Amino acid sequence: MTDTARRTNGSDEADRTMTVVGLGLIGGSMATDLRRRGFANRIIGVDSAPMHCEAAVRLGLVDETTDLATAVAQSDYILVAIPVSASLQVLPQVLDLVTTQTVTDVGSTKRAVVDALRGHPKRSRFVPSHPMAGTENSGPWAALPNLFEGKAGIVCDVADSDEDALREVEAMYRALNMRLVRLRADQHDEHVAYVSHISHVTSFALALTVLEKEEDEHTLFDLASGGFSSTARLAKSSPEMWTPIFRQNADNVLNVLDEYLKQVQRFRDCLVEGDAEGLTRMIRNANDIRRVLNG
Amino acid sequence: MTDTARRTNGSDEADRTMTVVGLGLIGGSMATDLRRRGFANRIIGVDSAPMHCEAAVRLGLVDETTDLATAVAQSDYILVAIPVSASLQVLPQVLDLVTTQTVTDVGSTKRAVVDALRGHPKRSRFVPSHPMAGTENSGPWAALPNLFEGKAGIVCDVADSDEDALREVEAMYRALNMRLVRLRADQHDEHVAYVSHISHVTSFALALTVLEKEEDEHTLFDLASGGFSSTARLAKSSPEMWTPIFRQNADNVLNVLDEYLKQVQRFRDCLVEGDAEGLTRMIRNANDIRRVLNG
Repeated sequence: MTDTARRTNGSDEADRTMTVVGLGLIGGSMATDLRRRGFANRIIGVDSAPMHCEAAVRLGLVDETTDLATAVAQSDYILVAIPVSASLQVLPQVLDLVTTQTVTDVGSTKRAVVDALRGHPKRSRFVPSHPMAGTENSGPWAALPNLFEGKAGIVCDVADSDEDALREVEAMYRALNMRLVRLRADQHDEHVAYVSHISHVTSFALALTVLEKEEDEHTLFDLASGGFSSTARLAKSSPEMWTPIFRQNADNVLNVLDEYLKQVQRFRDCLVEGDAEGLTRMIRNANDIRRVLNG
Repeated sequence: MTDTARRTNGSDEADRTMTVVGLGLIGGSMATDLRRRGFANRIIGVDSAPMHCEAAVRLGLVDETTDLATAVAQSDYILVAIPVSASLQVLPQVLDLVTTQTVTDVGSTKRAVVDALRGHPKRSRFVPSHPMAGTENSGPWAALPNLFEGKAGIVCDVADSDEDALREVEAMYRALNMRLVRLRADQHDEHVAYVSHISHVTSFALALTVLEKEEDEHTLFDLASGGFSSTARLAKSSPEMWTPIFRQNADNVLNVLDEYLKQVQRFRDCLVEGDAEGLTRMIRNANDIRRVLNG
């Protein structure tokens, strides 16, 4: 469907039917915004959990739900928003079903899915992408409006997709008010290990450390305040989403983790040696993060 | 000054002059709330930085500023809110100056200050305390109303303070709507290593890891979103405050850091071995943090 065809009656509203596969936090939040902002006027949901399907219709995230084949046949555009392990199974099935539709995913790793689809006859209808937004919560109940506002919308390996498919996926991210970033899939996976995956490792480990101590000191969390919450918040994130991410991106996460452990070790050495100058130098260097973190 | 004396004219307003030594985030925020809530009707500021003194008066945090001796002589109540290294010098000076006034501090470590004041003839006028609240920002400009609302207000070694002094400090924390917690100084230092100090170590190390990578990948932070900000926010915290905390609480921080490193190492082992079950088990256990972190 061309841009011209979409703008019947002088309206910017798209006459586009969209399928969202995976009615969780990301799929649900995208559906909400993409309808409100006119990117799609009919949204079909697909989810293996009947409870998610019911909730997504009741919450108004989607108009109806059905099975994958029926949904794809009726759609112009298919968004796959499921754990990255499931994507490796479901994306080939979706591409088997498409003719001229556009397909994108939102997974937090990109190399594995690109590898899995290499050589698929419909590969060029697929645009691997990743919106850098989310919360630590899951399910259609966790869907939020404006979740993506101002964040990075990454599309990968753009030369491997048809131009019209790429244009349509980039239009979707623009409709969400995201900043478009183009990367190679391998670059993507390395970069997100630094700005997202490692934060989850440190948060899980921190939560486990304090929870273990709490077994002896039951009142420990009575003392916790904003600082602890901030660093431990991501530890609420589900294993259904994160175990597959860590497995698919293990090499990059291990590299970053080892860089991180070097920094912790340097900090530890300063503590052991009572090296006030060393601590001050490390903290002052870390303060440079003010440059990139606002507020 | 007794509760009865304070309630002249049937009002709950206290006729109390208070000195705040250290016009930074904590001293400034406490001054703001304690005046609004009637704990003090006159507040004198003391700070070694003339710029802080000027700002604190201009921002209305304090009524006037003067030198320590003049301030203490005119006050009923003295709050010391300076870095914990400076407290070891300033608190003995304050106690040398007091007759019947009450003195408290708000430092993030308590053992060192209790040790430094042991045997001081006015020790019983001092109540070591610590409000578990703050932000990563510093200076009188960073002062915020309602910063302490609902958080823990810890008082330590209560048997070593005069009853009226303890009552007055606990009344101050109640005026700030804090939850009062009584701990021994050594317990305090161990517990805050778990729920506050370790979070700062992990945040500093995380910021340093990503900042170092950014030297090669200039656009790295374009991809960062809420998860990274959350875990790296504390890395904005100043070395002036944190180097002395880490030095005074090095033993406890090292113990917690070593527990933390064991958890990171277990996670790393699962990554190396591709142990999905192990990762899922660790993440699910970490998810138990939902029990204590709201929202």
